[in-house]
Amino acid sequence: MRALYAGRFQPFHLGHLEIIKEILTTYDELVIVVGSAQYSHTVDNPFTAGERIQMITESLDEYNISNPVYVIPIDDIHRHSVWVKYVESLTPPFEAVFSNEPVTARLFKEAGYTVNRTELIRRKEWEGTEIRRRMCCNEDWKACIPQAAARIIDQVDGVTRIKELARSDKLK
Amino acid sequence: MRALYAGRFQPFHLGHLEIIKEILTTYDELVIVVGSAQYSHTVDNPFTAGERIQMITESLDEYNISNPVYVIPIDDIHRHSVWVKYVESLTPPFEAVFSNEPVTARLFKEAGYTVNRTELIRRKEWEGTEIRRRMCCNEDWKACIPQAAARIIDQVDGVTRIKELARSDKLK
Amino acid sequence: MRALYAGRFQPFHLGHLEIIKEILTTYDELVIVVGSAQYSHTVDNPFTAGERIQMITESLDEYNISNPVYVIPIDDIHRHSVWVKYVESLTPPFEAVFSNEPVTARLFKEAGYTVNRTELIRRKEWEGTEIRRRMCCNEDWKACIPQAAARIIDQVDGVTRIKELARSDKLK
Amino acid sequence: MRALYAGRFQPFHLGHLEIIKEILTTYDELVIVVGSAQYSHTVDNPFTAGERIQMITESLDEYNISNPVYVIPIDDIHRHSVWVKYVESLTPPFEAVFSNEPVTARLFKEAGYTVNRTELIRRKEWEGTEIRRRMCCNEDWKACIPQAAARIIDQVDGVTRIKELARSDKLK
Amino acid sequence: MRALYAGRFQPFHLGHLEIIKEILTTYDELVIVVGSAQYSHTVDNPFTAGERIQMITESLDEYNISNPVYVIPIDDIHRHSVWVKYVESLTPPFEAVFSNEPVTARLFKEAGYTVNRTELIRRKEWEGTEIRRRMCCNEDWKACIPQAAARIIDQVDGVTRIKELARSDKLK
Amino acid sequence: MRALYAGRFQPFHLGHLEIIKEILTTYDELVIVVGSAQYSHTVDNPFTAGERIQMITESLDEYNISNPVYVIPIDDIHRHSVWVKYVESLTPPFEAVFSNEPVTARLFKEAGYTVNRTELIRRKEWEGTEIRRRMCCNEDWKACIPQAAARIIDQVDGVTRIKELARSDKLK
Repeated sequence: MRALYAGRFQPFHLGHLEIIKEILTTYDELVIVVGSAQYSHTVDNPFTAGERIQMITESLDEYNISNPVYVIPIDDIHRHSVWVKYVESLTPPFEAVFSNEPVTARLFKEAGYTVNRTELIRRKEWEGTEIRRRMCCNEDWKACIPQAAARIIDQVDGVTRIKELARSDKLK
Repeated sequence: MRALYAGRFQPFHLGHLEIIKEILTTYDELVIVVGSAQYSHTVDNPFTAGERIQMITESLDEYNISNPVYVIPIDDIHRHSVWVKYVESLTPPFEAVFSNEPVTARLFKEAGYTVNRTELIRRKEWEGTEIRRRMCCNEDWKACIPQAAARIIDQVDGVTRIKELARSDKLK
Repeated sequence: MRALYAGRFQPFHLGHLEIIKEILTTYDELVIVVGSAQYSHTVDNPFTAGERIQMITESLDEYNISNPVYVIPIDDIHRHSVWVKYVESLTPPFEAVFSNEPVTARLFKEAGYTVNRTELIRRKEWEGTEIRRRMCCNEDWKACIPQAAARIIDQVDGVTRIKELARSDKLK
Repeated sequence: MRALYAGRFQPFHLGHLEIIKEILTTYDELVIVVGSAQYSHTVDNPFTAGERIQMITESLDEYNISNPVYVIPIDDIHRHSVWVKYVESLTPPFEAVFSNEPVTARLFKEAGYTVNRTELIRRKEWEGTEIRRRMCCNEDWKACIPQAAARIIDQVDGVTRIKELARSDKLK
Repeated sequence: MRALYAGRFQPFHLGHLEIIKEILTTYDELVIVVGSAQYSHTVDNPFTAGERIQMITESLDEYNISNPVYVIPIDDIHRHSVWVKYVESLTPPFEAVFSNEPVTARLFKEAGYTVNRTELIRRKEWEGTEIRRRMCCNEDWKACIPQAAARIIDQVDGVTRIKELARSDKLK
Repeated sequence: MRALYAGRFQPFHLGHLEIIKEILTTYDELVIVVGSAQYSHTVDNPFTAGERIQMITESLDEYNISNPVYVIPIDDIHRHSVWVKYVESLTPPFEAVFSNEPVTARLFKEAGYTVNRTELIRRKEWEGTEIRRRMCCNEDWKACIPQAAARIIDQVDGVTRIKELARSDKLK
């Protein structure tokens, strides 16, 4: 059986990894939706979909997760009523949905899916906003994410990117 | 003579109905623009354009309004300079415009239309934000809207929808 | 029970009218989808969605059809996999679909709808391409369409429009 | 007084130049609409809008045309009914329109503009399709266009580009 | 080293598989771009991106190809000048490109990539148009594609789909 | 050598003019990107791209700046990763970039351009937000902008426009 797990993964961190491990105790295949795929180069969405897909793929490899996993970029289309159908057209079929985001959860529920909230598994420091804050403030962010993800962030000089982008917000 | 009345109708309520009745004392035909048509499933825009169109049509029937009325969904296109032309391409011709929204009013005015503000007719409790708040808080919202509109909201389980969506905002 | 009837209505003609009458012997409400809504001012799609909606509404009035009818403009979105969901988000619910177009038929069928082909009811001269050809060639086109539709075409000077547009094709 | 002249300019050639000179005998300012701006790298639309804008600007300089000229890229938006308004939002106001394309001409005419056809001024060899054909076939194309335009085509290696793109059509 | 291989995969067939095997003799990682991702339910593009991604993934598994492979859906965006950058934003970095399509080849070449044509490896019967024709005509198409791909086509009742869609073309 | 200078120019003011003069002491040609081109008729973006292009062109003429200057409208496309490529496709080539906006600066830097911040040249009263505030509050705004820009604002009745639009914000 195949499950779908949706997130933005800005960046992919150990909390995401734990959820994936947990899902794979019940399901043998997984579709990972890399949401808000079109956004990058903002403080809240610093990384491109390609960078995030690579982080996820190499992190799963780092942790020896060998189940069939589809990692699919999905744009926000700002027309909620068709978004689930849009996802379905870009993925193989799935039986259950895991998401922490109320709109995503509601939309899949109205489409007839069983939706599982993922929030209980998350911890305080394994959280995107916190990790991006640490990157801006020269605090330790590498402890929160897989080594493979950190390596990719370094390759694209992600810390400089996020610091320069943060000047936008300070100026406003 | 035909008038145009533009709103979001999230949901259609008795204030809208009074404005329509008032307009129809002067004009015999009406184009109702269901604006922001692409948005749904958010706290501010919970209902789809289809649900809103059905609310309006069945409410007008409930109140025995039998004038020719065109109910047309119109997207926000985020290019204000062409929006009036966009509306004109999706509706029959109209002679006057009724709207409570300053941008809408300004755009139609620059296009040469007579624009009538509708705000004086509105009351405190006949207001979209207030009605959506009541739906979230288990207060009486059915008193503010036509029975036909309430019936459609019940059919799509609108109260559960808006409550679940509201969790997004609380989490942020 | 409510049915959906999808077409381009370039222009609305007596064949469409006969199909609508036929549908209304079984269904008491009707959603008329004015497809390819964004296109106008081409030889194949000369009329705007607004002009087509007015043609349909006034023709139904001319023939004293008083059932509840929703006339809704729907864009071609060039992403077939989500089109039915897109239609559903802009219309009230419907139980059956009538269409003459194989793609439309297939899409609604895959979405679980009963689809009825409408082609048998159509005649040779009640056909969009033929009517547009007659408009270009100064032949009798008014016999093929309701008087209300002809009146609207005259009001927008539709015959001159289609003749001028036809020069595009001749030049290529 | 300001006129508008719309074309695709794939590439800008001596026929276009003659029309511009002719227009500037009557009008002292000119808006040049570089249409189908989003298209490039096809056999019919080989050059980007940026390349075409540079060709026009440097060619006008080559021929010492010093009138105020606005060169504006305009996308095809595939919604004809709003296209004129779209153009108006991206240009300064203009009093007359020059175009050789029937759809463009019709749309400006319906918007109330005086439209002048430009076709009589054009010659057989000063024509986009012919010039592109010559580029593919190693025939003399430089005689048909200003030297400045030829220089830009050489800089972007335009002949190789068009030849490689032409293989698409041959394969189909 | 990572290569990129772009195609439409309508459907994924043994010719594609041979090319992938060939590429993986030189490169150890592969990005497979599922192009024209938004199109489905037409005679030329019958399958959704999700169906095509599943065909590719399960076929690679069937043939025991265990190299890291990214399978990414990419829309046609009809603005060729930014398409390579669009691809780069949705994929991990790659060093070389394999494609049989002249426009794709030219665009990657102008962006500085080494582009390898793949056409020599293809055979007559391992070709999308031919396979889709066989599906329409009840001829043997399963011999041309991996068993995994055939299984997915059967699951979505792909043969019926393509036959029904083909009626569009016959009617025109 | 050609430089690019990007801004929104809502409206074009004397600070922009000083920056342009400064750039032209080093570069002999200039591309002026009129950013957020699709937005108009809001409090923050009151003027259309066409109005802004005319302001810039006529102001440069007023100040006798006769270098070759390309004034190009560029939409926000909300897909940052391709935005620089999008700009490049609509402009002639340029060697250096001037911008005051951190996202713009970062994107051009990642694309390999030398980016020069322009903020030091700006003064307190030569600033878009301040000038728009003055227009709303009947304070002196004409002192901050070229006379040509003021003339165009008067021609489109810009002060009334911005005052009427400001009612949106007050109502919320």
